[in-house]
Amino acid sequence: MAHTLGHSQYGKAETRVVRVYRDRDPHELVDLNVSVALSGDFADSHLTGDNARVLTTDAVKNTVFAYAQEHAEAARSPESFGLVLARHFVDDVPQVTRARVRIEQHPWRRLAAGGEPAPHAFVRDGQLVRTSTVTCEAGRAHVVTGLRDLVVLKTTDSEFAGFYEDRYTTLQPTTDRVMATSVDAQWWHTGGAVEWGTAFEAARQALCEAFAASYSRALQQTLFEMGSAVLDAVPGVGEVRLSLPNRHHFAVDLSPFGLDNPNEVFFAADRPYGLIEGTVRREGAPEPGPAFDPGQGWSA
Amino acid sequence: MAHTLGHSQYGKAETRVVRVYRDRDPHELVDLNVSVALSGDFADSHLTGDNARVLTTDAVKNTVFAYAQEHAEAARSPESFGLVLARHFVDDVPQVTRARVRIEQHPWRRLAAGGEPAPHAFVRDGQLVRTSTVTCEAGRAHVVTGLRDLVVLKTTDSEFAGFYEDRYTTLQPTTDRVMATSVDAQWWHTGGAVEWGTAFEAARQALCEAFAASYSRALQQTLFEMGSAVLDAVPGVGEVRLSLPNRHHFAVDLSPFGLDNPNEVFFAADRPYGLIEGTVRREGAPEPGPAFDPGQGWSA
Amino acid sequence: MAHTLGHSQYGKAETRVVRVYRDRDPHELVDLNVSVALSGDFADSHLTGDNARVLTTDAVKNTVFAYAQEHAEAARSPESFGLVLARHFVDDVPQVTRARVRIEQHPWRRLAAGGEPAPHAFVRDGQLVRTSTVTCEAGRAHVVTGLRDLVVLKTTDSEFAGFYEDRYTTLQPTTDRVMATSVDAQWWHTGGAVEWGTAFEAARQALCEAFAASYSRALQQTLFEMGSAVLDAVPGVGEVRLSLPNRHHFAVDLSPFGLDNPNEVFFAADRPYGLIEGTVRREGAPEPGPAFDPGQGWSA
Amino acid sequence: MAHTLGHSQYGKAETRVVRVYRDRDPHELVDLNVSVALSGDFADSHLTGDNARVLTTDAVKNTVFAYAQEHAEAARSPESFGLVLARHFVDDVPQVTRARVRIEQHPWRRLAAGGEPAPHAFVRDGQLVRTSTVTCEAGRAHVVTGLRDLVVLKTTDSEFAGFYEDRYTTLQPTTDRVMATSVDAQWWHTGGAVEWGTAFEAARQALCEAFAASYSRALQQTLFEMGSAVLDAVPGVGEVRLSLPNRHHFAVDLSPFGLDNPNEVFFAADRPYGLIEGTVRREGAPEPGPAFDPGQGWSA
Repeated sequence: MAHTLGHSQYGKAETRVVRVYRDRDPHELVDLNVSVALSGDFADSHLTGDNARVLTTDAVKNTVFAYAQEHAEAARSPESFGLVLARHFVDDVPQVTRARVRIEQHPWRRLAAGGEPAPHAFVRDGQLVRTSTVTCEAGRAHVVTGLRDLVVLKTTDSEFAGFYEDRYTTLQPTTDRVMATSVDAQWWHTGGAVEWGTAFEAARQALCEAFAASYSRALQQTLFEMGSAVLDAVPGVGEVRLSLPNRHHFAVDLSPFGLDNPNEVFFAADRPYGLIEGTVRREGAPEPGPAFDPGQGWSA
Repeated sequence: MAHTLGHSQYGKAETRVVRVYRDRDPHELVDLNVSVALSGDFADSHLTGDNARVLTTDAVKNTVFAYAQEHAEAARSPESFGLVLARHFVDDVPQVTRARVRIEQHPWRRLAAGGEPAPHAFVRDGQLVRTSTVTCEAGRAHVVTGLRDLVVLKTTDSEFAGFYEDRYTTLQPTTDRVMATSVDAQWWHTGGAVEWGTAFEAARQALCEAFAASYSRALQQTLFEMGSAVLDAVPGVGEVRLSLPNRHHFAVDLSPFGLDNPNEVFFAADRPYGLIEGTVRREGAPEPGPAFDPGQGWSA
Repeated sequence: MAHTLGHSQYGKAETRVVRVYRDRDPHELVDLNVSVALSGDFADSHLTGDNARVLTTDAVKNTVFAYAQEHAEAARSPESFGLVLARHFVDDVPQVTRARVRIEQHPWRRLAAGGEPAPHAFVRDGQLVRTSTVTCEAGRAHVVTGLRDLVVLKTTDSEFAGFYEDRYTTLQPTTDRVMATSVDAQWWHTGGAVEWGTAFEAARQALCEAFAASYSRALQQTLFEMGSAVLDAVPGVGEVRLSLPNRHHFAVDLSPFGLDNPNEVFFAADRPYGLIEGTVRREGAPEPGPAFDPGQGWSA
Repeated sequence: MAHTLGHSQYGKAETRVVRVYRDRDPHELVDLNVSVALSGDFADSHLTGDNARVLTTDAVKNTVFAYAQEHAEAARSPESFGLVLARHFVDDVPQVTRARVRIEQHPWRRLAAGGEPAPHAFVRDGQLVRTSTVTCEAGRAHVVTGLRDLVVLKTTDSEFAGFYEDRYTTLQPTTDRVMATSVDAQWWHTGGAVEWGTAFEAARQALCEAFAASYSRALQQTLFEMGSAVLDAVPGVGEVRLSLPNRHHFAVDLSPFGLDNPNEVFFAADRPYGLIEGTVRREGAPEPGPAFDPGQGWSA
């Protein structure tokens, strides 16, 4: 019966806030999904149901909406919006010792009408989701930027050979295959004075270019090159974590039908898939501490 | 015990085929999800388990892959690939009287590397899914093109007022609201000599432009304008069917926090949502017959 | 420019209402997802943006909630709740000529505590979703009951052999295979005086028993037996429509590892899958008219 | 350019294996989704593309299938199957220093036919997914059992009052509300000699009973009681981690329609939701070390 409370946290998850900037023409638009997790002195609520120190998750939601209005410029980037929110909870709510704010940003592009950019109409750009994790504790803020659902594919320049063989190995080596993955990447900013939008765009482009330009002898090798490219492109980044599913494309055997298949017709399989995860660090960078949310996809 | 068999059909659904065109440089890529439904003389299989007339769904899958190789040019558009497949099943398998081939095409864009277009690397363009439904029966082919998951939003130029009120009406009229929808559209080509890629792009652009340019007094009105725009942009189209969820964006009441909210901060709700469905027809166009698959989203 | 409006409908989709019955002990619980589609004299809204006849979808949502309170006994079955709602829209809103109400019901089971049934605590029973489609027009009501996501599997008593072979057929006949499907069934009640809960349970049990008891020479044959079983079990049902994906379980070839696999180890594949759809009718039953929503899964 | 490789791991994810036990009558069935992650001496593959030490993920998949045949009794529980698999990779593949095997088990129940249990037919029991995470390193194995998607709801015996209020707090205290959650729980077994099936069932029942029997002053309090109940029910468990979304059910204001709503009609909201996460530990239990996969939902 003598059980004890270990680590705990709570908050409001997935508050969907769309911020429209109407004080300029054309309008602008930011579309965010905000999740807040608070840690601190909340044991009473668990142990006795005394909620005297519990900031309601409803108030957390209200704060997200109110801050989108009051901190209009901060809300333009998930990193800066996460920073004002996380600092608020730690600074203004005494019993909160750590706040972690995870934000997904869904990109939109401006539509055109009559050959001109439309001032008030947008289309969702589904190429990727931009992510941010801001953690505030003990007077320090940690910022991680990332993206997911960036799906890329190479039709050649990929081989996989010379691998270890055991009793259960039946795969044939190949010097030419399709390689495809859905990039889930997160990178930690060691410093704070960052132009978030510019830095994100540089990292996104670095990931794409490294994937496109590299000759791949293994998805592991490509992962390292992609992480290195982010470090090269964004100076303040100390560490990059990548989780890359190997979305298998199997060349279909068409010989029963009297047909050749010189790597032209592929079956895109769902499951199982390879899953390659790795960390690329800048030499001499400090340790990231609590910057990365361990529950967020990448599993150490 | 005297039960009878009514309408039936069967086939292989969701064969995921990726066709790479390597005989040119740069490579090209088509990514399709092919579902085939066959009708005909298949009662024996249902009534007695005699499968002597049943073309296996495994053979249907094999045919999709083999045709992607043999009919390389047809495979470049879902409409033309659907046509060769549907005609094959009706022409070459005697017991098949009708074949319906539904194809989803996932668009990809070429990546860049070093400032140049990458010859062999692509990124999935998640803005929409292109669809096609080809139905072949009695020597005739019917072609429907469409798209889904095209998510668009207007920050203004949308009102909703002057509506009918009953006992359960509490909505306040508004002269300025955010309007957002995920476009699911299908349009039927009355004739066959169509440049499919060009026609699709014209229709997609017409849908986007009509949404962007219109002043909306109801999503119903915008639906009609979007359908009309497709008819204007693609001459051979006889009928357009649209299914438009009204993805509500509610302006958040910030007055408890002493804040104004002049249509700047919105809560994007998931459910429930309005659902507006409608048909726009070219005057004098013939009836579409079996062209539209009634099970495909739009419900008459 | 001379375009015309064809069939249209609109309403509120996926209103999630949970009705708790607290006037008895133990409490009871009904969990519904209600979608309403209205047709009628709504052309003005499409053509000119004049909404004078448009009942707002917000009012539709309000009606669902209010009726869950006012029509407490009707809300206990999706069919009876659909009937009061559909009749209300047709009878009380002059411009509505047809109302279709689709309801999904998520079943819950009572939890136990201390060896006794818990009076106020429930667990979601995820075995299936019960569905209902009620269509009201011209003074007549049509009721369809159904279910989906009922996943069943036979480890033997299933064969597939003696099938038609063409150039693309490579499948080997088998006299023993795993057969699995996710049942999507809908059945139309020709009359109105039905004990809905009892009838649903009888149909659900008939589907399961027919699947379990039958020796299958094709999934087509099993489909017909399952539909026949519903007709036998529920007297007033005139027609049953079934959509059965063939969820392939492939016996894995373990011979490279020196192992036999006498139908013991299977790979459960996601895509592609066979899709078998069919109708079983009671001899002499009338035609179902508009009872079945053509957009609801089963595609004629 | 001087970048270094940090932590990495790789493997095959989501191998879907169904094991049928046909050497007894009636047949039995186990349905698993197996994901393997390996760590060790794999830097060469990342840094130079030399794959000489890389066990292919294809071989990992083959191993899962072969072991399901060779280790038939172990495959009957996800914990014991995870143990034989994880030990194999660490013991038999020299370059592997740690193996983590995560398994999801989808439960099935036997169907009935003619009043008797069907010997060969089953229905998927969708109430929950059973999970297991086995981690093997340095000669030690760590076993975590869990479940997810167990959705439970109380119609009363839940209040939320006396909470902290800040500028953004507008929630009214309540002494009677609906409380619903989807339980995601994991518990760590300190020792190895466990009857896995019995222990899982005891833990599942403890979670349900604690939820049903408790009077809740906060979901936090209920979380602690549920975790404590698992510790009480399964002696060897040292720590329980719970992640409980608060699935809000809002009583609908029906006063505009002249109706009372004494907690009878609720709107079940999707997003946002509260998210309460916490750890309950047995006093004096050792630290769990690497037992919990940090990437698996619960975020420290």
